[in-house]
Amino acid sequence: MSEQLNQKRLKARLAKGFRDIEARELRGLKRMLAVIEEVYERYGFEPVEQPFIEYTDALGKFLPDQDRPGEGVFSFKDDDDQWLSLRYDLTAPLARYVAENYDRLPKPYRSYRQGWVFRNEKPGPGRYRQFLQFDADTVGAATPAADAEVCMMAADTLEELGIARGQYVMKVSNRKLLEGIMENAGLVGHQMAAKRTAVLRAIDKLDRLGGEGVFQLLGKGREDESGDFTRGADLTDSQIARIMNVCGWGQSGSGSKGTTNLVSIANLEDAVGDSVRGREGVEELSNIIEFVANAGYEENRILIDPSVVRGLEYYTGPVFEAELLFDVKNEQGQAVRFGSVGGGGRYDDLVSRFRGEKVPATGFSFGVSRLYAALDQLGKLDSAMPPGPVVVLVMDRARLPDCQRMVTELRNARVNAELYLGASGLKAQMKYADKRGASLAVIEGEEERSRGEVQIKDLAEGARSAERIESREAWREARPAQVSVPRADLVGAVKRWLEDRRT
Amino acid sequence: MSEQLNQKRLKARLAKGFRDIEARELRGLKRMLAVIEEVYERYGFEPVEQPFIEYTDALGKFLPDQDRPGEGVFSFKDDDDQWLSLRYDLTAPLARYVAENYDRLPKPYRSYRQGWVFRNEKPGPGRYRQFLQFDADTVGAATPAADAEVCMMAADTLEELGIARGQYVMKVSNRKLLEGIMENAGLVGHQMAAKRTAVLRAIDKLDRLGGEGVFQLLGKGREDESGDFTRGADLTDSQIARIMNVCGWGQSGSGSKGTTNLVSIANLEDAVGDSVRGREGVEELSNIIEFVANAGYEENRILIDPSVVRGLEYYTGPVFEAELLFDVKNEQGQAVRFGSVGGGGRYDDLVSRFRGEKVPATGFSFGVSRLYAALDQLGKLDSAMPPGPVVVLVMDRARLPDCQRMVTELRNARVNAELYLGASGLKAQMKYADKRGASLAVIEGEEERSRGEVQIKDLAEGARSAERIESREAWREARPAQVSVPRADLVGAVKRWLEDRRT
Repeated sequence: MSEQLNQKRLKARLAKGFRDIEARELRGLKRMLAVIEEVYERYGFEPVEQPFIEYTDALGKFLPDQDRPGEGVFSFKDDDDQWLSLRYDLTAPLARYVAENYDRLPKPYRSYRQGWVFRNEKPGPGRYRQFLQFDADTVGAATPAADAEVCMMAADTLEELGIARGQYVMKVSNRKLLEGIMENAGLVGHQMAAKRTAVLRAIDKLDRLGGEGVFQLLGKGREDESGDFTRGADLTDSQIARIMNVCGWGQSGSGSKGTTNLVSIANLEDAVGDSVRGREGVEELSNIIEFVANAGYEENRILIDPSVVRGLEYYTGPVFEAELLFDVKNEQGQAVRFGSVGGGGRYDDLVSRFRGEKVPATGFSFGVSRLYAALDQLGKLDSAMPPGPVVVLVMDRARLPDCQRMVTELRNARVNAELYLGASGLKAQMKYADKRGASLAVIEGEEERSRGEVQIKDLAEGARSAERIESREAWREARPAQVSVPRADLVGAVKRWLEDRRT
Repeated sequence: MSEQLNQKRLKARLAKGFRDIEARELRGLKRMLAVIEEVYERYGFEPVEQPFIEYTDALGKFLPDQDRPGEGVFSFKDDDDQWLSLRYDLTAPLARYVAENYDRLPKPYRSYRQGWVFRNEKPGPGRYRQFLQFDADTVGAATPAADAEVCMMAADTLEELGIARGQYVMKVSNRKLLEGIMENAGLVGHQMAAKRTAVLRAIDKLDRLGGEGVFQLLGKGREDESGDFTRGADLTDSQIARIMNVCGWGQSGSGSKGTTNLVSIANLEDAVGDSVRGREGVEELSNIIEFVANAGYEENRILIDPSVVRGLEYYTGPVFEAELLFDVKNEQGQAVRFGSVGGGGRYDDLVSRFRGEKVPATGFSFGVSRLYAALDQLGKLDSAMPPGPVVVLVMDRARLPDCQRMVTELRNARVNAELYLGASGLKAQMKYADKRGASLAVIEGEEERSRGEVQIKDLAEGARSAERIESREAWREARPAQVSVPRADLVGAVKRWLEDRRT
């Protein structure tokens, strides 16, 4: 140890793309996660968690925009030369778990889990390499009722968190629609696989780039603000038009996206024509919409939006996206729609690839940090902060054991209390109590002690008075509320005080 | 995706040394963590969390028994060629955080956090490479009152979790005692550093190897059961005797370890003689004992035990260990003391090495999985399992939407309910409900439907009857409780039923 200390001083710095989380956010997250859990339990989902590290081959490579092997994932070799990876989502590990324990699990198997996932990507503002997801999945149910349930559950969760009806919408689409359209447009067969992937990725950027940008990506290509050029899918104008139309960007208006779900279904039926794949997609969408409507979820909660494709490659059919509709200010101060806080879909091949038999599955994942930011914007998290502790200050270090006893008495009476443990004077101690958000300070000055008393200072009341009183003179007169009580009555007095404050 | 599916089938398997955590344990953990948190909040500690990944140099190398660089830690290079590591504990990242944010934090700074940590070690039975810790730390307080507080908090936590007084003890010692003894025994100076480290590591194995094994490790060396030989510290008999004595293994009886804390202090004063370092250790221990006794914590809760050294290299003074005193059966069926569920100590150099100024710190860490196992043994977690959901079975797949509506009605009334989403018949559905631990099943048979009724089956009551009734015949007669209710009264009937069960 001493040798390490003698080396040149280390710089204390967070690793690039990571962040610390402090008390306010942790308390807010805790409350938020408890609400999500409550809703998921109500839907009969049970908790299960997989480890952070899996064999790389078990996770597979399904990240969007990651062509090079290993890209996007933190990987390292075990001592037996097998590759391990940090999980990049919670779905791939769940698929491994279900496949490994298939025989003893209830089928269908509904489960939920929250956990940190890791992406080995270039960090940016608000873009971290470690983030929290909250997932729910139903494995072993092929029926669109399972997809419908996941969407209803996500909608219920948003409302339970305080996001009002009208402030959010669960958007639903189906990968097979786009596949059907591509089939009709002649993008079939192995040699067109790269083009189909390029189309999927281009459509996934509709939110960010808008119709014009995606139009370019489907055609010759696009130059971004920095001058970087991305090669396009090189489709013909007619191919592009058909694809854009199904995604709601028709040449005249909103394309296939109708004002009601039933209109959208009818438009989509037209758009996919006689593509078998496409018709399957429409049929599944239609079933989902029937289920949710039947349970009382109308277009204002669950809406068909064919522009949703979701980036992850493992989706095989229905895809979902939770979008928040209210505006927030971006970094340039412009009002922008809050946007996506989660997504999901059906991934029928992810468990199957381990089992060699069909194991259908569907699920939804909340991006917890995005959701937290949304609730914070809406002011739904303020009450998560508990009242600060009672701080017992130390006027005379020789009396530390007696101060400790006061603190112990308070804690034994279930009052959050702490002893000032530093070595500084009264002024620094008051500053400390303030930083701690303390509600009350207890002080045993020499004068009080000679009378067998202690002083209680109401710090919160002091701060409130300071807000109300405008002139400096009035503030001086109004001094923070304080009172002396008999030492023997300390706990009683503090409890009465806190009780009063609460009411 | 389809190409991946065409490859040979993947084997679904957990990575070596990792494990999944299922519902029962997750629910138990959640309850347990909430209790720990409540106690820590009562002591005025606030939550803060650091990321899972830090720069390798920021974490340092303080693991026990890891001489080779990188050993014990999962590490990988970032794209800018800097080394990153998964955290191996929660203390080193906290030290980085405090150093980086020192100026704006309250001082002293009390905080707590729970989180998974990772060790790149050889896994074994019950020994995983990912485990959960719950830490509390006070940074910026040099006073032994801070050490005393951490010990009292750990003791309070154990009792709050349901571990009775007498079933646990917080053992306290001080690294400086052993350092003083080594000084007296002539183990001083740079050239003796390796021997001093060897002594520390040997003593840390007292629990596992007993006095005889440690005696060998301090002398010529020790051959373990597998025949592997570990070289010893090669001390003289007199050096060994002095060291074993201070650790409570005197040649006649328990050495320095007394029957009361005051007797231990007196013994230790003798043992360290005029070593300045040793006397400092005794003085700090004495202060801690005075503080805790003054707050009402006697030897039956916080006890001096000089055999405690703790493995991590960053401790600089007081060290603590929470030990559970009741017996459990080991893998061979023998009764063994449960043992350690956590530890901690003062680490005055860990923040300092970033700051170049003294930043004293102390803390305690619970090994959450060990603690969970202990509470499970004591039967303190059973009530963590919530009652199972209500399962609505599907007799006729064409009626799925109506079954879905029943489930939605139940959920809207805050009843945990689920729809059977599989494709199997009634028998498999009943088996499913059983696996789910369902309390009630709702069945709408054709006959019931014609009468506008649904059937409610009390599955838990059925299981209970089955336990009570011994003969097969009596069981057949006592059939699981079931009743038909009007469809319109479904929610009311279910709620009344669940209400009755609760009382």
